Amino acid sequence: MGKPPEKSIASLVDRYRVTDGKKFRLNDYDPEDTAALSVRGKKAKAASQALLAKGIARLAELQDRLYAQDRWGVLVIFQALDAAGKDSTIKHVMSGVNPQGVQVSSFKVPSPQELDHDFLWRGMLRLPERGCIGIFNRSYYEEVLIVRVHPEILRGQKIPPELVGGRIWAERYEDINAFERYLRRNGFPVLKFFLNVSKKEQKRRFLERLDLPEKNWKFSIADVREREFWGDYRKAYQEAIAATSTPWAPWYVIPADHKWFTRLVVAGAIVAELEKLDLRYPKLDKAKRRELAAARRELK
Amino acid sequence: MGKPPEKSIASLVDRYRVTDGKKFRLNDYDPEDTAALSVRGKKAKAASQALLAKGIARLAELQDRLYAQDRWGVLVIFQALDAAGKDSTIKHVMSGVNPQGVQVSSFKVPSPQELDHDFLWRGMLRLPERGCIGIFNRSYYEEVLIVRVHPEILRGQKIPPELVGGRIWAERYEDINAFERYLRRNGFPVLKFFLNVSKKEQKRRFLERLDLPEKNWKFSIADVREREFWGDYRKAYQEAIAATSTPWAPWYVIPADHKWFTRLVVAGAIVAELEKLDLRYPKLDKAKRRELAAARRELK
Repeated sequence: MGKPPEKSIASLVDRYRVTDGKKFRLNDYDPEDTAALSVRGKKAKAASQALLAKGIARLAELQDRLYAQDRWGVLVIFQALDAAGKDSTIKHVMSGVNPQGVQVSSFKVPSPQELDHDFLWRGMLRLPERGCIGIFNRSYYEEVLIVRVHPEILRGQKIPPELVGGRIWAERYEDINAFERYLRRNGFPVLKFFLNVSKKEQKRRFLERLDLPEKNWKFSIADVREREFWGDYRKAYQEAIAATSTPWAPWYVIPADHKWFTRLVVAGAIVAELEKLDLRYPKLDKAKRRELAAARRELK
Repeated sequence: MGKPPEKSIASLVDRYRVTDGKKFRLNDYDPEDTAALSVRGKKAKAASQALLAKGIARLAELQDRLYAQDRWGVLVIFQALDAAGKDSTIKHVMSGVNPQGVQVSSFKVPSPQELDHDFLWRGMLRLPERGCIGIFNRSYYEEVLIVRVHPEILRGQKIPPELVGGRIWAERYEDINAFERYLRRNGFPVLKFFLNVSKKEQKRRFLERLDLPEKNWKFSIADVREREFWGDYRKAYQEAIAATSTPWAPWYVIPADHKWFTRLVVAGAIVAELEKLDLRYPKLDKAKRRELAAARRELK
C-alpha cells in the first residue's frame, strides 16, 4: 500500500463526498481514516508527500486556466472544530497556487456593521471573482453551528424577535441551499469541507500548543471551554451537513486526525471539481491572430 | 372628490399591490389612473399636496422609530422605463425623511469588477442596514429586463456559456424570489415599485427635456432609441412582475402619467408597509432607567 497509483487520489475523494444528506450519519465517518494508505514509516511519508505535490501541481495548472478563461469562479468553504487543521490545510494545499487568483477570507466574530445586516451579507461581500478561487476560513455556516450551539448569540443579534421562531434553522438551511444553487447557476460552484477531527486528537493538539513555544500563539482558553460543547457541535454538524448536502454544493467530510491525509483529500477534491469544469485557455479568433502576427513582425 | 378622507391613502395603495402573479396582466393597469381623485383645478392640487405632506410626515415618524428600534430594515426598489419619474419620486417622497436612515443606490451599467461577480452581487453590497430604508434606483431586476430585451448584453457578460440556456430567465426569477424571501425572513421586507408610464406621456416628457434648458441635462438620445423596444420592455415587465410577485415581496404597479399621483401612492405604500411592522422606540429596563435618573441628578 506504500505508494498508491495516481488515480487513487480521485477515488480517495469520492468516499468523503456527500451530495444527498438523507442517509448521512456523521458517526459513519472515522476521523482516523486514511483509506488504507500507510500511516507510519519513512517510505509512506515520502509517498504521501509525492502524491500531495502532484495534486498541488495539477491544482496550480488548473487554476492558471481558470484565471485565463475568466468565466468560472470557485468557492471553497472550510468548517471544523478548533485545532482540526483549517489554517494548516489552507497553507499547505494553496501555497503552490498563484495568489493572484486566490482570495482567502477568515470570518471571526461579526462586527457591529456586519450584525446590522442579514447573516449572509458579510460572506456575499467576499465572494470570489470569476477566474478566482475564494477560500472561506469559517463561513455563513457558523450561523447554523456556533449560533445553534449557543442560542444566546442569536438572541444577541438584531433580528426582529418575532422572526426568531422554531423554524429558524430549517429556514436557514433552505436559504443557504437556494443561495448556493444560485451561485452554481451563475458559474460559482461551492465546495464545503468539514475537517473531522476526534476529541482525543484535538486534546493532543491543544497540549502541543501549550508545550511548543512556536505554537503558543495559537492557544486560546476559549477553545478549551468549547470542548464542553463537543456533543452539541457534533449534533449541529450532523444536522447542517444532512440538510445542506446538495448535488450543486456537496459537503466533504474529511478525516482530520492525520494532517497529511487531510491535505491529500482536500487537494484531490478541489482538483476533481476543477477537472469537471471545461477549463481552457481562451482561443484567439482570426482577427486577433493576425494582430499577434503583425505585432511579432513589428517587434522583429 | 376634491378632498378625499384620510384613510383613502391606504385604499389607494391596495389596488396597485400584486402579491400573486398568476393572473397578473400589465395591460389591466392604466398609466393615467388617479383612482377618481381630481386631476385638474387649484383645489384638487392643494388637496393632493396636503395628502402627500401628511403621508410624508407619517413616513418620517415611522422611519424615526425604525431607526431607533434598529431591528428591521426595508428595501425599496424602483423600476421603470425612462422618464417615468423614478428620480423625482425618490426626491419628493423621501426628502422629508432623515437622510441618516436612508441609503439610495443607483445602478447603472455594471463595472468590470461587478461583471466579475454573480448578478446579485452588486445589489447585495448595497443592502440596507437594520434601522434603515435602502432605496434602489434600478436594481438586479435589470438582469431580467434590459438584459432580456437585449440578449447581446447577456452574451457580453462573463457567465460560462454552457450555463446560458433556455431556462435562464426562469432560474433568475426563482433565484430572485428565494433571495427576497431570505431577506424578509431576516428582517428586511422588500417593496418593488414599477412606475407605469404610457408611451404618449414618455414622449411628452422627452420633448420637455429638449425644450426646457434646466431639463436638458436629463435628455439622452439613447433613451429615445430605447422607445423602439417599447413592446419588448412591456413583455419583459409583464413576465417579470408575474413571476416575482410574492406575499413577502409584492410589486406595486403604479400609474405614472400623473406625477403627483405616483408620489401619493408610493408614499402610501411605504407607510403601509412600515405600519405593518411593530415599530416602537426601545423600552428601557429598570437598570437603564436608574442609570438615567442618576445622570439627571448629576447634571443638576
